[in-house]
Amino acid sequence: MKKESILKVGIIGAGLIGRSWAIVFARAGHEVQLWDKDSRVVSGVRDLIATQLGVLSQHDLLVDQQATLARIQVFPEIEAAVDGAGYIQENLPEKLEIKKEIFQMLDELCPRETVLASSTSSIPASLFSAALSNRQRCVVAHPVNPPHLIPLVEVCGAPWTSEQVVQQTIALMDSIKQRPVLLKKEIEGFVLNRLQGAVLNEAFKLVKHGYMSVDDVDTTIKDGLGLRWAFMGPFETIDLNAPEGLADYCRRYGGLYESIAEQQSVVEPWAESLIHDVAAQREQVLPRDQLQERADWRDTKLMELVSFKNKANLGK
Amino acid sequence: MKKESILKVGIIGAGLIGRSWAIVFARAGHEVQLWDKDSRVVSGVRDLIATQLGVLSQHDLLVDQQATLARIQVFPEIEAAVDGAGYIQENLPEKLEIKKEIFQMLDELCPRETVLASSTSSIPASLFSAALSNRQRCVVAHPVNPPHLIPLVEVCGAPWTSEQVVQQTIALMDSIKQRPVLLKKEIEGFVLNRLQGAVLNEAFKLVKHGYMSVDDVDTTIKDGLGLRWAFMGPFETIDLNAPEGLADYCRRYGGLYESIAEQQSVVEPWAESLIHDVAAQREQVLPRDQLQERADWRDTKLMELVSFKNKANLGK
Repeated sequence: MKKESILKVGIIGAGLIGRSWAIVFARAGHEVQLWDKDSRVVSGVRDLIATQLGVLSQHDLLVDQQATLARIQVFPEIEAAVDGAGYIQENLPEKLEIKKEIFQMLDELCPRETVLASSTSSIPASLFSAALSNRQRCVVAHPVNPPHLIPLVEVCGAPWTSEQVVQQTIALMDSIKQRPVLLKKEIEGFVLNRLQGAVLNEAFKLVKHGYMSVDDVDTTIKDGLGLRWAFMGPFETIDLNAPEGLADYCRRYGGLYESIAEQQSVVEPWAESLIHDVAAQREQVLPRDQLQERADWRDTKLMELVSFKNKANLGK
Repeated sequence: MKKESILKVGIIGAGLIGRSWAIVFARAGHEVQLWDKDSRVVSGVRDLIATQLGVLSQHDLLVDQQATLARIQVFPEIEAAVDGAGYIQENLPEKLEIKKEIFQMLDELCPRETVLASSTSSIPASLFSAALSNRQRCVVAHPVNPPHLIPLVEVCGAPWTSEQVVQQTIALMDSIKQRPVLLKKEIEGFVLNRLQGAVLNEAFKLVKHGYMSVDDVDTTIKDGLGLRWAFMGPFETIDLNAPEGLADYCRRYGGLYESIAEQQSVVEPWAESLIHDVAAQREQVLPRDQLQERADWRDTKLMELVSFKNKANLGK
């Protein structure tokens, strides 16, 4: 990948995540070349993106709609989409065979200095890049859905990914105002889903054993812990929660958290009956025919929150 | 506790939490009677509260400073502070002997219908109320620090706490615009700290085993999961993250989270060397002589966030 201020970026797959990435890169000034194998997707994608850009603009999250849209080209042939690209972001379905096949194709199509990144949330780069001639340029850049609203990107190479490719990917993400974090070794679920899993597994257990309702668990996060975690991580939170900082906090409460850890160490898979009970409680809060409406509400509120964080200088 | 629109509330202990509770109750229109055994605390407390009210007012979190302050009386004698109170909120240090002693005293001083609530974050009501004549009116109402900014309150009775007392406490918290959640049975750490513990224990392990830096783990929450969790809980988050809702999500990802749970089931206490490493990484981000400044920043940002949530109708 060349060090240029304006880059050609190839985006593979124009579903929700691919379109969102197109917005992120184009918003930052890069030239986006978007490909999808489905011709119906290709023909409709610019309209979908244009609508989304209008919404972003309304929330002060985009300066120039027209210029941003003008930087996005959509192609029905993959060769055209990768032509001249210094960086490729792949967004096909989460199946190992699909990832292997597309990375094989990309490895053959792209010159050796082009970085090949996958948006996969669950498949480590070592599984889809092992057999490639230029596997050192393959990396995972896992976004949170949708990346044009949630800035986090987990960057994780395979054992053979070159340090330079990892650092270039992090620098690129920084430059487009995403928030890259470095996963130094591959691990199942990467970090975000492991932290989410830790909370979900305990949350399901608390409901299962009759300690708290589903809605009250949600309230405990959104009106309690989540207020801090929206602009501080768990370590900064405890660092500021004892007079002498984190080590002081650990001395005071380490015993409590060890005891809790012991209780939480029992693995309790989410049984069908439990899922049914939790889903039924959610249905009481949100009727199933309002799921889409609420998802739209979530996206609107995310935009308002991100816009607020920008203005309140809460980004870092 | 009588069902009156305006209540006399006795607050026991005028430290950070006690003062914050005084603000919460007085802001909502109740008559606050605040007691501290330390005469120096008593003499300075109204000035401290007045300053805090001014700051809240600047952030649109308080309508009438003067009227609010006028509803707070401070007493050097506990008898005066509990006189006529329908509800008592206790905030003394987290020592079982201290809690036992003060609840014994309160049980003797207050008529039997007065609700006696503790702010304890770690001592279940069954441990400090067992021997009392009127133990059925004792309950935990655990706030998050500081309650005048973070609305969550965990309400948890002992096995002998009357259902009426629990429901009265929840209704009172609702009426003063806090967000009560009901813990139906006692459990160590209550719910908030168990969820925090689940995240912290995994976060410490990820750093210990070299997967990610302290700062990047924080970023993963604050620029990733935390954005959703600031206004949705973990269950609502996954309910909106699969086309058919929560049960659909569990079918798709339950296997992943079970596998993660198995890996997370190993208990790894926070060793001194690990705490030292994590604290050293925090020190790189925040020099120790800036801890207080950053804690003040946190409180300001919390106020801005809470004010934003109110305006964006993100409260419920």
